[in-house]
Amino acid sequence: MTALPQPAPGASAGARTPYYRPIAGEAQVFHYAYESRLPLLLKGPTGCGKSRFVEAMAASVGRPLVTVACNDETTATDLLGRWLVRGGDTVWQDGPVTRAVRTGALLYLDEIAEAREDVIVVLHSLSDHRRALYVDRIDATFEAPPEFMMLVSYNPGYRRALKELKPSTRQRFVSLAFGYPAPEIEAEIVCAESGVDLAAARRLVALAGRIRALDELGLAETASTRLLVGAGTLIRRGLAPRLACHVAVVQPLTDDPVTAAALQDLADLTF
Amino acid sequence: MTALPQPAPGASAGARTPYYRPIAGEAQVFHYAYESRLPLLLKGPTGCGKSRFVEAMAASVGRPLVTVACNDETTATDLLGRWLVRGGDTVWQDGPVTRAVRTGALLYLDEIAEAREDVIVVLHSLSDHRRALYVDRIDATFEAPPEFMMLVSYNPGYRRALKELKPSTRQRFVSLAFGYPAPEIEAEIVCAESGVDLAAARRLVALAGRIRALDELGLAETASTRLLVGAGTLIRRGLAPRLACHVAVVQPLTDDPVTAAALQDLADLTF
Amino acid sequence: MTALPQPAPGASAGARTPYYRPIAGEAQVFHYAYESRLPLLLKGPTGCGKSRFVEAMAASVGRPLVTVACNDETTATDLLGRWLVRGGDTVWQDGPVTRAVRTGALLYLDEIAEAREDVIVVLHSLSDHRRALYVDRIDATFEAPPEFMMLVSYNPGYRRALKELKPSTRQRFVSLAFGYPAPEIEAEIVCAESGVDLAAARRLVALAGRIRALDELGLAETASTRLLVGAGTLIRRGLAPRLACHVAVVQPLTDDPVTAAALQDLADLTF
Amino acid sequence: MTALPQPAPGASAGARTPYYRPIAGEAQVFHYAYESRLPLLLKGPTGCGKSRFVEAMAASVGRPLVTVACNDETTATDLLGRWLVRGGDTVWQDGPVTRAVRTGALLYLDEIAEAREDVIVVLHSLSDHRRALYVDRIDATFEAPPEFMMLVSYNPGYRRALKELKPSTRQRFVSLAFGYPAPEIEAEIVCAESGVDLAAARRLVALAGRIRALDELGLAETASTRLLVGAGTLIRRGLAPRLACHVAVVQPLTDDPVTAAALQDLADLTF
Amino acid sequence: MTALPQPAPGASAGARTPYYRPIAGEAQVFHYAYESRLPLLLKGPTGCGKSRFVEAMAASVGRPLVTVACNDETTATDLLGRWLVRGGDTVWQDGPVTRAVRTGALLYLDEIAEAREDVIVVLHSLSDHRRALYVDRIDATFEAPPEFMMLVSYNPGYRRALKELKPSTRQRFVSLAFGYPAPEIEAEIVCAESGVDLAAARRLVALAGRIRALDELGLAETASTRLLVGAGTLIRRGLAPRLACHVAVVQPLTDDPVTAAALQDLADLTF
Amino acid sequence: MTALPQPAPGASAGARTPYYRPIAGEAQVFHYAYESRLPLLLKGPTGCGKSRFVEAMAASVGRPLVTVACNDETTATDLLGRWLVRGGDTVWQDGPVTRAVRTGALLYLDEIAEAREDVIVVLHSLSDHRRALYVDRIDATFEAPPEFMMLVSYNPGYRRALKELKPSTRQRFVSLAFGYPAPEIEAEIVCAESGVDLAAARRLVALAGRIRALDELGLAETASTRLLVGAGTLIRRGLAPRLACHVAVVQPLTDDPVTAAALQDLADLTF
Repeated sequence: MTALPQPAPGASAGARTPYYRPIAGEAQVFHYAYESRLPLLLKGPTGCGKSRFVEAMAASVGRPLVTVACNDETTATDLLGRWLVRGGDTVWQDGPVTRAVRTGALLYLDEIAEAREDVIVVLHSLSDHRRALYVDRIDATFEAPPEFMMLVSYNPGYRRALKELKPSTRQRFVSLAFGYPAPEIEAEIVCAESGVDLAAARRLVALAGRIRALDELGLAETASTRLLVGAGTLIRRGLAPRLACHVAVVQPLTDDPVTAAALQDLADLTF
Repeated sequence: MTALPQPAPGASAGARTPYYRPIAGEAQVFHYAYESRLPLLLKGPTGCGKSRFVEAMAASVGRPLVTVACNDETTATDLLGRWLVRGGDTVWQDGPVTRAVRTGALLYLDEIAEAREDVIVVLHSLSDHRRALYVDRIDATFEAPPEFMMLVSYNPGYRRALKELKPSTRQRFVSLAFGYPAPEIEAEIVCAESGVDLAAARRLVALAGRIRALDELGLAETASTRLLVGAGTLIRRGLAPRLACHVAVVQPLTDDPVTAAALQDLADLTF
Repeated sequence: MTALPQPAPGASAGARTPYYRPIAGEAQVFHYAYESRLPLLLKGPTGCGKSRFVEAMAASVGRPLVTVACNDETTATDLLGRWLVRGGDTVWQDGPVTRAVRTGALLYLDEIAEAREDVIVVLHSLSDHRRALYVDRIDATFEAPPEFMMLVSYNPGYRRALKELKPSTRQRFVSLAFGYPAPEIEAEIVCAESGVDLAAARRLVALAGRIRALDELGLAETASTRLLVGAGTLIRRGLAPRLACHVAVVQPLTDDPVTAAALQDLADLTF
Repeated sequence: MTALPQPAPGASAGARTPYYRPIAGEAQVFHYAYESRLPLLLKGPTGCGKSRFVEAMAASVGRPLVTVACNDETTATDLLGRWLVRGGDTVWQDGPVTRAVRTGALLYLDEIAEAREDVIVVLHSLSDHRRALYVDRIDATFEAPPEFMMLVSYNPGYRRALKELKPSTRQRFVSLAFGYPAPEIEAEIVCAESGVDLAAARRLVALAGRIRALDELGLAETASTRLLVGAGTLIRRGLAPRLACHVAVVQPLTDDPVTAAALQDLADLTF
Repeated sequence: MTALPQPAPGASAGARTPYYRPIAGEAQVFHYAYESRLPLLLKGPTGCGKSRFVEAMAASVGRPLVTVACNDETTATDLLGRWLVRGGDTVWQDGPVTRAVRTGALLYLDEIAEAREDVIVVLHSLSDHRRALYVDRIDATFEAPPEFMMLVSYNPGYRRALKELKPSTRQRFVSLAFGYPAPEIEAEIVCAESGVDLAAARRLVALAGRIRALDELGLAETASTRLLVGAGTLIRRGLAPRLACHVAVVQPLTDDPVTAAALQDLADLTF
Repeated sequence: MTALPQPAPGASAGARTPYYRPIAGEAQVFHYAYESRLPLLLKGPTGCGKSRFVEAMAASVGRPLVTVACNDETTATDLLGRWLVRGGDTVWQDGPVTRAVRTGALLYLDEIAEAREDVIVVLHSLSDHRRALYVDRIDATFEAPPEFMMLVSYNPGYRRALKELKPSTRQRFVSLAFGYPAPEIEAEIVCAESGVDLAAARRLVALAGRIRALDELGLAETASTRLLVGAGTLIRRGLAPRLACHVAVVQPLTDDPVTAAALQDLADLTF
């Protein structure tokens, strides 16, 4: 389990606001949910900008962000906190969820469907009308302050049958479905994040469009905006565009030589 | 495992009585079971008000409520208590079940079928004529006071084959089956909990009725009252009703774009 | 694992003798086995009175009873005992089996087929001609005194294929098969345990008879005497008999609405 | 894991020699293997006298016997020993295998096929030309003295496919197959162990013969000598022979009412 | 988990630069990715030189290399570090990932697909725009210095279905596919690493070419450059070439006598 | 896990050289691999002399031998070492692999395919050009001295599908396939190890030849040289040859009475 505390926004918050390009009404829904004290579930494929969106929203409401990358080794103890023995002394260390509740942060649980059930159950009392966290090891209950909000993300296209959220969990969250942005917006994003010129960014987006249109390739997941940003970065540094597409788009998508050749043909057509 | 202690009702208990709208004779059965010292099992789908009912009943008999959200990581140790080392000293900390027995509370084990067998076995001696709890780690037996009552809940429609209560457990409980309330009552509940006006609440209930009537969609679970309360809250805050239904009813129910479009058509017809 | 120590019978033992209504020659077999120092296995469905029988037999021979409810989390350590650290000191705490052997109690392992193999193996040396218990963690061997007896129970109708006793375990025990008692005796038991009048008790037994005769319903287990006692208790308190049957007999037996309606029809015919 | 140390034979060893009735040349093979420092594997069904044989052989060579009942929870640590913290001090406690090697005892691992592989591997260096035991936690190697011998037992008829000894383990042992003894010998054994008169013992053996001849009943295992000794004991105490056969032979063999009736018919024919 | 720290390159770094023969543009891609702060994934069969490539690249940029051989027992704790109790004192010991981030090393996770998910998740925040490592047990966040780079390797041909990288992990890495080098280059490598003369090296490469062309043999994996280096080394020491091929090429590839004979025929044809 | 340290060879090393009868060029391959610092994999059926070969080779190069019998409970910690608390002090105890590397011993991992992956991964850095062992718990790297060599064994005929070495492991080892020796050599071995006369040894070998020729019996593994040595030992002690073959050859090979009778017929024909 990894938890990445972001600095609390203060004087310099504006300077650190992450780049985020709004696509549809997702920011509006976020703000209504935030005011309604309702938790939010973000659904969408890998690399489409869910985490960036959360960073931008946290900055927009001026609250710190606590991110937890969930996986099936994460335990409730990791999230809530533990007693540590240090130098002969016993000290309590908050886990990321407890810290988020105490400080009124936005708590973001990335890939929630990967977490074990005991982790998800910890969220139940935080995600309904109780908005409370009980930490049994210190026998304390924390009521979440009004500034607190919980957000979770989930990739419905990946390992569908194996990792599903229970209805009793899903029905606790207002839900937003994310997809890849429209071409012009995506080109703008690739340009801004990689530093490549807009013409090359448009070509990368065109390539992604062609790949996304190919259903018959049997890819586990299709080309994400993240891949395009990687390719754009290498091109800006001076790598030949076709080689950049090969190592940053084609090879990350497949191990099959035939499929890779088909994808590379598309890349060669584009550049 | 999370255990949320409620304050013991006293002078201010009336002020904190949670909103609960009785539907059928369920309160009557509760009171007979409580007087007969018999434990109670609540069966029903997610979000239909089982937890609210328990909160209301605890308030009605003026006893504190100890809630345990069960999951397959919960151990008997979590429920009974453990020895903790704090500052060089060893202190015993009651688990929620021990605390409930000691204080004569109502003990509510939510989603009991998710718990492991050792947790369920802890309940056996509490749920029959013995009404006793043996805590082996402190070598103590607690006889439950007359005020103590155990309630458990269970969702028979979810993961039916995987998680079943053993007959030897089930036959220890007086059992109540919960469903969704009649439309007029459900609209009243949505109105009271979300603050939306009664006309909108009725439309939300009508939408839920249409969704619940659709067997062919293959939803894991259908629209709960909880979903309607979420949508109503967003509408009251000012979000457009169709968008509110999209993010608070349609998206929480499905990840499939075709099913989501069908559900959204119903929402658009309603508003 | 839960172990419920009963008080050693002394002056007041007679006063605490539990109600038990003998059905066939089971008490006679118990006494011959007890005198022969042979362990006893009780087989039968849930709620038919096995535990009550054991309580009555312990009282009849004037020995304390130590009950262990087995489940697949119970370890040999739980049964034999463990070293505990309390206040800086290390103390040994007997588990229930060790305590039963030391004190010459009757040891009752309920639902033995649920226990793990290491638990069952602990019993082997106690259940053959050796009658000895070796506790490796304190490097001590306890020979069981003549007063000691081991009893185990097992429900052969439940999860037959999954949980079976090994022949090498089964063949160590004198075995008694329990069923539901004859109607007149069962009515007497329901009457005595619930306090309901004999007429209502007879109706409840008649209802159970009708349900037990229905093979086609696919119930995991049929109506036990325990269910009838629950229904009788609610009726004595004043609940309408048909509603009492609904919540204490019908709903504990099934989650299927069609089956529940069929069972309720039988209840309505009876009252 | 249970280990039952037997007293070292000394002045009183003769007085404690257990009853054992030799059947074929098994004692001769034992003595040749013992003199050749070869380990011995005993194969045969439950309750046929393997453990009794081992007790008798240990007495015949005047060595103590250390018995370990194997199960799939037994670890190499349980067998070799562990560091224990007692009263602030750390003390090493030999496990049963280490104790057997140190004291030149006979080590008997009952139901070896139930043990985990790490337990069996501990035996490898003891069972070949090395005859040595390495205990890593105390960094010590013990060479087995000439008096030491390892015996293991195994029931080839039980859970054949699931629990098999690896060829690399099996081929380390001289092997003896045990069966039930010839009728006259078996009657003699039942008579000696239960105290019942020879006529009744012969009838019990005749009953066992009839049951063992019935292949079509689908019993997990057939009637053992142990069962006959149990029935004989109850008969000697005064229980009616047919009832004794019912509770000590029929019910331990089956849970199926039809099969039980067929077996009881055989018992009723016999007495 | 094993982590092999390489000495930091200093005065003597040139002297220790490992032999590496570049094949295609892989060094160029490495340097662009290194300058772009993008992590790199190396794909390819066993023994084709992925690890050698990483050693050479680390030397070329003058940074130390920290290698972790992943397996399914490796935990996040092993990678990040742990509190150790040594001589009554509690000291923190960095794991290899923390050490690599702190010292600005190249971190190489070999056979990443063998690792558990919690290990892979530790990498997520290091492999995207955050380039940060959060170590919860010491409550510290380390930002990776610009010199830090993460490389991972993965063998797509082995256990394809069982061990796959998730798309959300794969799409974080610039990816390079490795294969076996062209014959003349491979002979040069075998010659340089084994010390065998070039004529024999060419014969070994010819043998590998013949084996790699045989699809019908059903080998789990084909002859790697590593195998040829082993055979070359034995030949240089004086072992007969056919016997060297037998023990260093044929027997490592198959256990099947028929397949081994077919492979040996090829070896005998070559030498 | 068991590790059997052999005494370092010194003045008396010659006196302790174990009996080993070379069969083909296996000693020659060993010596070339030893001089080339290449690790060696021995493949072959149980009881064919792999372990004896390793003992003889260790003696021939005058190095101590550290043997580890692998099984699926063996962990990397067992092999590398652990911190132990003894008498209030914390001391580091080398595991067998660390001890072998430190002392320049021959390290023999018997039945390597039984080990878990984390154990095998520990070997990777020892088995390639790095020849280094990293022990993370003491943060130390040990370079293997030139005298160090790693040998592993593996039985390809046993549980083929379940336990296979990964190609990336196999291709690190020079490999030798062992079989049963030619009859005259095998008789010489049986004679030397059991002390039986050569005529009887030849008969035992002839019996083994007949059994090995029988494919249709469905034996898990066929008669090994080890079995013949056992039978020879019993015969030398005076046991009748047919009975010796019964308990030392026939019964160890099968539990099936029909197969056992067929094998015994062969034994009776031979003697």
